[in-house]
Amino acid sequence: MPKFKMPPPHGGRLVERVVEKRDVAEKMAAGAIEYELKPTTDPKGVPIRHVYREIISVCYGFFSPVEGSMTSGDLERVLKERRLENEWVFPYPILFDISDEDLKALNVSEGDRLLLKLKGQPFAIMDVEEIYKIDPKDVATRTFGTPENNPEVVRQPFDEKHPGWMIYRCMHPNVIAGKWTIINPPKFREPYDRFWFPPRKCREVIKNEKKWRTVIAHQTRNVPHTGHEMLMKCAAYTGDIEPCHGILVNAIIGAKRKGDYPNEAILEGHEAVNKYGYIKPSRHMVTFTLWDMRYGNPIESLLHGIIRQNMGCTHHMFGRDHAAVGEYYDKFATQILWSEGIPSFGFEAPPNEVDYGLKIIPQNMAEFWYCPICGEIAYSENCGHTDAKQKFSGSFLRGMVAEGVMPPKVVMRPEVYKAIVKWWKVFNYPFVNNKYLEYINKELEIDLEPMEIPKA
Amino acid sequence: MPKFKMPPPHGGRLVERVVEKRDVAEKMAAGAIEYELKPTTDPKGVPIRHVYREIISVCYGFFSPVEGSMTSGDLERVLKERRLENEWVFPYPILFDISDEDLKALNVSEGDRLLLKLKGQPFAIMDVEEIYKIDPKDVATRTFGTPENNPEVVRQPFDEKHPGWMIYRCMHPNVIAGKWTIINPPKFREPYDRFWFPPRKCREVIKNEKKWRTVIAHQTRNVPHTGHEMLMKCAAYTGDIEPCHGILVNAIIGAKRKGDYPNEAILEGHEAVNKYGYIKPSRHMVTFTLWDMRYGNPIESLLHGIIRQNMGCTHHMFGRDHAAVGEYYDKFATQILWSEGIPSFGFEAPPNEVDYGLKIIPQNMAEFWYCPICGEIAYSENCGHTDAKQKFSGSFLRGMVAEGVMPPKVVMRPEVYKAIVKWWKVFNYPFVNNKYLEYINKELEIDLEPMEIPKA
Repeated sequence: MPKFKMPPPHGGRLVERVVEKRDVAEKMAAGAIEYELKPTTDPKGVPIRHVYREIISVCYGFFSPVEGSMTSGDLERVLKERRLENEWVFPYPILFDISDEDLKALNVSEGDRLLLKLKGQPFAIMDVEEIYKIDPKDVATRTFGTPENNPEVVRQPFDEKHPGWMIYRCMHPNVIAGKWTIINPPKFREPYDRFWFPPRKCREVIKNEKKWRTVIAHQTRNVPHTGHEMLMKCAAYTGDIEPCHGILVNAIIGAKRKGDYPNEAILEGHEAVNKYGYIKPSRHMVTFTLWDMRYGNPIESLLHGIIRQNMGCTHHMFGRDHAAVGEYYDKFATQILWSEGIPSFGFEAPPNEVDYGLKIIPQNMAEFWYCPICGEIAYSENCGHTDAKQKFSGSFLRGMVAEGVMPPKVVMRPEVYKAIVKWWKVFNYPFVNNKYLEYINKELEIDLEPMEIPKA
Repeated sequence: MPKFKMPPPHGGRLVERVVEKRDVAEKMAAGAIEYELKPTTDPKGVPIRHVYREIISVCYGFFSPVEGSMTSGDLERVLKERRLENEWVFPYPILFDISDEDLKALNVSEGDRLLLKLKGQPFAIMDVEEIYKIDPKDVATRTFGTPENNPEVVRQPFDEKHPGWMIYRCMHPNVIAGKWTIINPPKFREPYDRFWFPPRKCREVIKNEKKWRTVIAHQTRNVPHTGHEMLMKCAAYTGDIEPCHGILVNAIIGAKRKGDYPNEAILEGHEAVNKYGYIKPSRHMVTFTLWDMRYGNPIESLLHGIIRQNMGCTHHMFGRDHAAVGEYYDKFATQILWSEGIPSFGFEAPPNEVDYGLKIIPQNMAEFWYCPICGEIAYSENCGHTDAKQKFSGSFLRGMVAEGVMPPKVVMRPEVYKAIVKWWKVFNYPFVNNKYLEYINKELEIDLEPMEIPKA
């Protein structure tokens, strides 16, 4: 068995569509048709997705080889086979949707250049390749599957209660396809800035600074309890001839739901794990990717694999109910995908064994619980004391935090709790509430420098 | 990456040289020249090796592809390149040595058949292929290496204080080479009998009963403390797309030293780990192999790899100071061998990457300690609380046991301690002492049924 090394980016090369030089950027945007980006909103008008997050993830290469909003050909192939027209596996439609009114007002057609603005400033340009109509409800349903069409893993029909389905459902019926290019690189605010490792930088840090040959990715959108920490530590014992050299935490930062922890607490909570020596910084680093989570369990796991392969990881850990909400999917759906494949989604074999597939290696993990007899956080495949087991309960833990009670050390590291408290003081509440939602939807994670585009 | 499956036996096929049919056995032994097996003894007359253990391990296939006592050609190649004349990697000389007096009295020559007796009963036959002289001291030194010839890993010259070197040093100067065949299968006494899984049986149990696709081997000659248990559990998270399905504990049972735990406590101590649910029996099994340990660190690790590959394991865990005594070898010698190779011992690459090498995959592990801040047995590559760490000390633990103190749960499982106490009561002492040595050297681990060989 040869030793593993950093896999190439998905699709063979890293997409990088960020213009750093101001004069070049101004020239490229000159004369383009301006359009201020708007969030996708649910029927009540609440923002549930911000397309700028997809633009950033695409242009910095997190989603390589995707380069922009998909053409109708790409969209159809993704929905049918989870592949782009160039054959490479990709799970989700990436779409720049626009309302009838805005499309009419813009009056664009193929070959035009759009200047996309954010927070009132020039942000990115987009070369229009195609303008086409979609049926948002149909796209939503085909994105996630149905019990009839995907009997291997879909257990109930997707509906309005599923936040990912709602994102596609609430899109406008027009799509502008075309490649995106960022012309005004975003400035991440604190504390995001110190966790910002886009793929090229991340690969450089892994290779030259951390000097990790093997790296396992950990998906998160939570403040870590000790069960998460144990999952990370144990999954990382995989590798080749020795445990993985590094653990890369990659938080998905995007649309928030009430009761979530604030982004800031999530990032600094994970940072506390290495800062306070539970997993040394020489083996652990915290990063994030912008994406309004679709909660697509196996479908989402493909995106996670692509993102982390692009960031330079050799392995990816997958637990039960990976990126899941509700009981739409089988709780093992992701692990079924990565151990056998799911033919109805286009995978006769696992995604890392098909042509034009991923190169990242899955580590499919079972469950962890606290066992008072073992006296430790035990792995379900080891611990035989099933009568004594105490499962981790995120809602119980949240309840404790809400009451201002510091959870016992065995459940949460005190320094992680302190990261929650720090941001609690800032936002006057430990969890996401309406006020936080208003704040984050207005301020976003980034600022853009003022930029003047010369009129054509 | 393809999923792993059970590797073939080392050398391509399992050696099986055990005749079960009594009438066939009698026919084969008829007229053979009788010789009662004797232990190798040190200058004080203390037994330090029993050749019947090697005969059993060879004939049941633990040492495949070795089939008996080596010819001078095989011996020379093993000492020079750690390979047999048929090219397959093998680390140690396996020799049937005999004194000048006994050789003279036997009056055998090439082509003769020997009937080897044990405890007064017929045990095995041996077809004499070659009789040759050795210089035991030279064989001993070349077996383990020297700082001059093996500067990568040998730190000081081997001498009388090294029990493995002494085994070869104390051999007689004559070697009878030839294949062994057991004609009177040994009956293992309690509790050995329920841990006896020779390779064919072990492979069957793994495949058909346990249904493990991947299995990691754990080397032991100790009663397990929680540090050993944690090593097993953590190393077993390696695998391919999921953690190893099984953990195979393989105890090396052979020459004992004063202060060791008795064999019985070692086997039942490990059994307690699965019997009492710390690692479920569905994931953990305890076995043993007969071998008078040579303490050859990297050289011994090759034998361990061969034994466990023959037993059907896909992976083998290696810690620091693997099978080591004293400071003859670099403490990382085994890990150097399995991650880079040791050219002076014939390995330009790791033993699982060379032609005619092993197929078992190493998992090279660093250290575990108890960390009061982490509140758990922590892995040195994770835990950053190096000031607070508390290292496991076998001698401290032994001291506690000697005082009749039950060690704290965090250091030893109570049921493991009870296994020690059970045999303490039987032998009137918790550790190996002169009385136990006398007992084990007389009774051995086996009985042989009475058997009459017809005179020719």
